[in-house]
Amino acid sequence: MIDEATILSFDTATNNCSIALTRGGFVNGTVVASVHFSSGITHSRKLLSSIDRLLAEASINLSQVSAIAVGLGPGSFTGLRIGMATAKGLCHGSSKPLLGISSLDAIGASVRSDKLICAVLDARKKEVYSCFYRNAEKPYASRCSEPAVLPPEVLAQQINEPVVMAGDGVDVYNSLWSELLGNRLEIAPARNCFPAADSIGFLANEAYLAGQFLDLAGSMPAYVRSSDAELSLVKPVRRPAKLQSAEKGQK
Amino acid sequence: MIDEATILSFDTATNNCSIALTRGGFVNGTVVASVHFSSGITHSRKLLSSIDRLLAEASINLSQVSAIAVGLGPGSFTGLRIGMATAKGLCHGSSKPLLGISSLDAIGASVRSDKLICAVLDARKKEVYSCFYRNAEKPYASRCSEPAVLPPEVLAQQINEPVVMAGDGVDVYNSLWSELLGNRLEIAPARNCFPAADSIGFLANEAYLAGQFLDLAGSMPAYVRSSDAELSLVKPVRRPAKLQSAEKGQK
Repeated sequence: MIDEATILSFDTATNNCSIALTRGGFVNGTVVASVHFSSGITHSRKLLSSIDRLLAEASINLSQVSAIAVGLGPGSFTGLRIGMATAKGLCHGSSKPLLGISSLDAIGASVRSDKLICAVLDARKKEVYSCFYRNAEKPYASRCSEPAVLPPEVLAQQINEPVVMAGDGVDVYNSLWSELLGNRLEIAPARNCFPAADSIGFLANEAYLAGQFLDLAGSMPAYVRSSDAELSLVKPVRRPAKLQSAEKGQK
Repeated sequence: MIDEATILSFDTATNNCSIALTRGGFVNGTVVASVHFSSGITHSRKLLSSIDRLLAEASINLSQVSAIAVGLGPGSFTGLRIGMATAKGLCHGSSKPLLGISSLDAIGASVRSDKLICAVLDARKKEVYSCFYRNAEKPYASRCSEPAVLPPEVLAQQINEPVVMAGDGVDVYNSLWSELLGNRLEIAPARNCFPAADSIGFLANEAYLAGQFLDLAGSMPAYVRSSDAELSLVKPVRRPAKLQSAEKGQK
């Protein structure tokens, strides 16, 4: 039964490593098994062994899984690369299709509220990744903006109505949100402070039924902003004038 | 810091085995790590090893845990006994205090809604365990009735307003709820279909701060109804007339 696809999902966009086995979507779907733990920078050491254990605990083989879904980010660049590499490796090795879900969407979809929902993840450098969601036509909250990276003050200025904030960016800028949003602010339960793999699995079920598979060779995480390495690469190109004058000075 | 108690919690009242490490309560608390999987009747084989793995994944020793909290049920009698025995064993071995939380309360507290909340667990024999909750003064939904065991039709008759139902009893009597409750019925997300150990941990934090520890020797699960074994035991006492007449007939 195609409706009963079993999807193995994981997200490593934040300090939390979240893994789930789900069947079906947000309506009538089931979480067969899930694990999450705060693993800091050790995703690379723990992800694959934790996937193995969860499959064993649920008495499910990788061969019984219909597809593998990965949280695309935005979030920790290293975490996203480890997640994507692991997902591609598993798909390649088991000939399963790959699905990708925004980590912000996973947060937004797991919040139940009639208010505006704001998923917010710490992007370091005094910025946050963020996206807005509403419960409207779908059985879960879906996007009403595009993912963005911006200073938390700027994000707060965009919010002019009661809002539920969720994600690890809530805690990081806790006093700032309280100050700028006052009694418009509601903080989602602790469960929603990271992108949960069960949400990714339920969202991925829709993509699976629609055949929206990712290309194993070409697909990349949704970084939203350029990495430090990329920014350093382009820096010399952006400052030819200074370089020239420096060269001139050396003559 | 006493507010930052780390609590190891688990629930084996249903087919789902749920384990969590939490810090703090429903407000500002964090889920350090959690795992859940459908283990059927194999709780006894998997519970302790899964606790070990979760502690390892979270890089936490049992000695760093402040207290151990167990889901008291109601639910599967065998599951509850395994949960309680394991909790007592861990507490005894590590000199940690024991806390107990109703498995129905764990479900009720994890649902976010302004409607009436009904936690419902399959009790077999065409009955359900159930309790009602409301979001009122506390930061989570708390009891507005006492736990009961009753036929699902009788439970449905008690509901005269919009309700969110959560627990494994929702699926088991799906068509009955739809028929008797119609558009008053809202079904909670899949995450809330079993008593989650993270909810138990957050509720247990209050009990921990209040020093409401269970007695390691005397504490028992909250069965709500008598077991088959107990019912068989009292049966002969309840039918002395028949037994006497049978004895007379044998003379």
